[in-house]
Amino acid sequence: MKQSKTLIPTMREVPADAEVKSHQLLLRAGFIRQNASGVYSYLPLGKKMLRKVEDIVREEMDDAGAVELLMPALQQAELWQESGRWQTYGPELMRLKDRHSREFALGATHEEVITALVRDEVKSYKRLPLTLYQIQTKFRDEKRPRFGLLRGREFVMKDAYSFHSSQESLDEVYDRLFEAYSNVFRRCGLNFRAVIADSGAMGGKDTHEFMVLSEIGEDTIAYSDTSSYAANVEMAPVVTVYEKSTDEQKPLEKVETPDAKTIEAVAAFLNVPAEQCIKTLVFKADEEMVVVLARGDHEINDIKLKNLLNAVTVEMASEEEASALFGASFGSLGPVGLPSDVKIIADNAVQSIANIVCGANEDGWHYVNANMDRDFNVSEFADLRFILEGDPSPDGQGVIQFAKGIEVGHIFKLGTRYSEAMNAVYLDENGRTQPMIMGCYGIGVSRIVAAIAEQFNDEKGFVWPADIAPFDVHLIPVNVKDEAQMEAAETLYDAIRQSGLSVLMDDRAERAGVKFADSDLIGLPVRVTAGKKAAEGIVEIKVRKTGDVVESTIENVVNVIRELQASL
Amino acid sequence: MKQSKTLIPTMREVPADAEVKSHQLLLRAGFIRQNASGVYSYLPLGKKMLRKVEDIVREEMDDAGAVELLMPALQQAELWQESGRWQTYGPELMRLKDRHSREFALGATHEEVITALVRDEVKSYKRLPLTLYQIQTKFRDEKRPRFGLLRGREFVMKDAYSFHSSQESLDEVYDRLFEAYSNVFRRCGLNFRAVIADSGAMGGKDTHEFMVLSEIGEDTIAYSDTSSYAANVEMAPVVTVYEKSTDEQKPLEKVETPDAKTIEAVAAFLNVPAEQCIKTLVFKADEEMVVVLARGDHEINDIKLKNLLNAVTVEMASEEEASALFGASFGSLGPVGLPSDVKIIADNAVQSIANIVCGANEDGWHYVNANMDRDFNVSEFADLRFILEGDPSPDGQGVIQFAKGIEVGHIFKLGTRYSEAMNAVYLDENGRTQPMIMGCYGIGVSRIVAAIAEQFNDEKGFVWPADIAPFDVHLIPVNVKDEAQMEAAETLYDAIRQSGLSVLMDDRAERAGVKFADSDLIGLPVRVTAGKKAAEGIVEIKVRKTGDVVESTIENVVNVIRELQASL
Repeated sequence: MKQSKTLIPTMREVPADAEVKSHQLLLRAGFIRQNASGVYSYLPLGKKMLRKVEDIVREEMDDAGAVELLMPALQQAELWQESGRWQTYGPELMRLKDRHSREFALGATHEEVITALVRDEVKSYKRLPLTLYQIQTKFRDEKRPRFGLLRGREFVMKDAYSFHSSQESLDEVYDRLFEAYSNVFRRCGLNFRAVIADSGAMGGKDTHEFMVLSEIGEDTIAYSDTSSYAANVEMAPVVTVYEKSTDEQKPLEKVETPDAKTIEAVAAFLNVPAEQCIKTLVFKADEEMVVVLARGDHEINDIKLKNLLNAVTVEMASEEEASALFGASFGSLGPVGLPSDVKIIADNAVQSIANIVCGANEDGWHYVNANMDRDFNVSEFADLRFILEGDPSPDGQGVIQFAKGIEVGHIFKLGTRYSEAMNAVYLDENGRTQPMIMGCYGIGVSRIVAAIAEQFNDEKGFVWPADIAPFDVHLIPVNVKDEAQMEAAETLYDAIRQSGLSVLMDDRAERAGVKFADSDLIGLPVRVTAGKKAAEGIVEIKVRKTGDVVESTIENVVNVIRELQASL
Repeated sequence: MKQSKTLIPTMREVPADAEVKSHQLLLRAGFIRQNASGVYSYLPLGKKMLRKVEDIVREEMDDAGAVELLMPALQQAELWQESGRWQTYGPELMRLKDRHSREFALGATHEEVITALVRDEVKSYKRLPLTLYQIQTKFRDEKRPRFGLLRGREFVMKDAYSFHSSQESLDEVYDRLFEAYSNVFRRCGLNFRAVIADSGAMGGKDTHEFMVLSEIGEDTIAYSDTSSYAANVEMAPVVTVYEKSTDEQKPLEKVETPDAKTIEAVAAFLNVPAEQCIKTLVFKADEEMVVVLARGDHEINDIKLKNLLNAVTVEMASEEEASALFGASFGSLGPVGLPSDVKIIADNAVQSIANIVCGANEDGWHYVNANMDRDFNVSEFADLRFILEGDPSPDGQGVIQFAKGIEVGHIFKLGTRYSEAMNAVYLDENGRTQPMIMGCYGIGVSRIVAAIAEQFNDEKGFVWPADIAPFDVHLIPVNVKDEAQMEAAETLYDAIRQSGLSVLMDDRAERAGVKFADSDLIGLPVRVTAGKKAAEGIVEIKVRKTGDVVESTIENVVNVIRELQASL
């Protein structure tokens, strides 16, 4: 490709509204342009990268036995009403009416469409399992589109859906796609972890998120410093064993703690460590009030609480509701002296504290030296807190560390959530009607482009990995008015292409400084420069990543490039 | 691909609501399924074909020097307001609001988006010309979606746009893309014509439609029986030379013609040929009333009239308006005795008629033996009628014949329609601001799939051309419980794939009759059947198109297929 024939609008300045490196550089290097908030055009270089990622995804999905199809973006409202999500999906689902006032959703995801399709076409266990995927534009009206391609409103996704007549079959395909996903992200050069995730409202069982480790990630991952264990921080169990304290129990004492409403304030005022305090929280679990105790330096994890209580919803009680129960405001609540019908549960860590500091259920007062069983009762201990850095890894290997992650993939055992709601059934070996068991599997294709961009850059611009770079070689005649340089460049342009490598040639009549700066910004792996020595048949080859420069005869350039590529 | 792992839901019966062959067969052979009126899913076989067509389009566009990018489907209303099309495009443009009540169009076409992009990024003649294209899903809320993929509401299109600093540059790219388009349709095996088309409301100059000849086409093409001349029937000029009649002029006579309101009725009543009659029509051209005369067997072409009058709109006058002018109703209008300020124009053919039959401007009466100049005056003669079969071809070679065509491509010199409306300007060599000169170029990618389907079938199903078929070979073990047959099939499955050919293997436990019927329906070019002789190492190879059958040893199958392919 000749640069004069394509559109690579590079920019010197950093765009004001681009907060993160990938977004800034994708704009500056002319890979994308914004059309509307969260809506982008992929310019020629961006489109090339998108296709490279798509091809990798397609290869790995095909290898894993999934079959490609293409479903529409326009989805009839009736399907979403069948699944119940027309009501529950909220404003992220973009909706419109056609000329006959029929309602449609713009595909944010395709569970409904594919479930209806397979329901209509597959009737027997003999046609299962079936794994179908598509690479397609999706629409989600994000509340806060940001970071360029990382969180857009129109984006490219690979979504796959599998249908099974047994849990074992689902497990097998799930594992196969787990491998396929790992291959995709590895081939894209990404530093990622497969993370145990929350199955949340979907009601499924197993689910993994594939997270690219990055400071700008919106999710926190708890991972082992020695094993492959990784989980969304919300999902990691705490396996620390807490023994009951054997400290001597001191007499309960009520002390005035004016204006001390937080654990920090109380601990400082009483000059005790936060670990000596407990925080007393009140939740409403499906309308039942539950008192939850945690050590002063720990945070309660709603999801663990919800799972423990087997509740549909769990939320914090309001201050009014808490006051009605305790006779005191937030900041002075405590378990001592509560009515015996109030359910008190506690995180495991609480059992190892003796002579506890806790609220006295009177505004401005706390107890010191409260002790379990003597001064209050706990009906149940459980793992209720968020894991912390330094906690032992749940798999027994190493200790937990935290990292931020960008979600680029998600695989999910859906079970019969959609097949039951939409009556997607098959006849089993015994002629009985059964709901299909389903899995779903997503990859954010355009988000991968951004994640790679985020990971592979330096102060001058992009430093693309070889398999993803929009072109293999950047060929630069320094002065396009110099005949020898242009002749060398044209010869090399043909030779490099004939060797099977792709090449971008900067044939613009720009100053050398501009061309080199643009070249560094665009970040192709290898640059070939035809400068003053071109007249002697010598050109310069530079590796973007290392900055290493070698000279070569024009005839030998392809061989040198091949050697350099092999050494990277 | 093993058939047990994919989704090819064939059907025996012809779907009730599918009117045309391509639609019926694409449904029956399991290539597509309808999601909503005009909205389809491409099942695995359909998706494969779509990709093959996309790849051909991409190769030819790249070869022609166009550069791929990808623009969004969500388009801000503001852009369409700039071009003026937000108001004029009508209900075909699907519209929606985002969560902040901002209005968007769902991309039906991308002139606005690309003009805004290039306006913002290209400022100098040095960066022109530039030709950009995308292959993308488009949305048009057709009033009457029909014929399956032929006229859908969500469809795949290749759209390209070129930007120039001179008309010569546009002409050059136009010609290059004309060639590229011809290559695309030729490679798809289509019987097509490049047809001179109407530049219509777009205000451009040159435009060609690429039409696949087909009985189900919605457009009529007038083409030469000996040359490559072809035009939309609305666009073909009539080049017949009409000499003034030298017949003796008979005396004008007024005759009663009760209930004869059409040319046919009058001609029959008076026992004269329709060619002896003239029809008198009244048009409103930008509010001016114009009387137009045509020979009784000819039809007036609005577009020619509009171009002659250089009018923005031309429409038939109402019967009331006509009566006010003539004092008579439709069916008895004529040019004799009209006020001298009424403009009368006539098609060229009218000048060759003497002793004309025409309306007498009195209900139920006609004149016979009316003669021009003596009885009425014509202010201008021009080519105003539709061309007819048998007319001489406008290029002077052969005579015109008619055919129906499916529009699969359209190339168009837009000129400065969008660049002026949207202020897409550049600085020329002299530092002066100029509007960019534009071209636009569309191919209906999913419509090509339907057009190929329409052209390549027989009574049993599809007969795909080799370059487009979803797989090269259909491999059928007749009885999957027969070990020798399955072993032969597995061996062949690997061997055929290793040879670089693609293969679909019917490993389903179905009866032979079902498998063969499905295979004929799906229509892959070559079928390899492992039947009873598989135990002896012999299989059967059948060519779908010719029905020819040969036997081959298992070892030699790939060679035989290659030979058969070369002979097709």
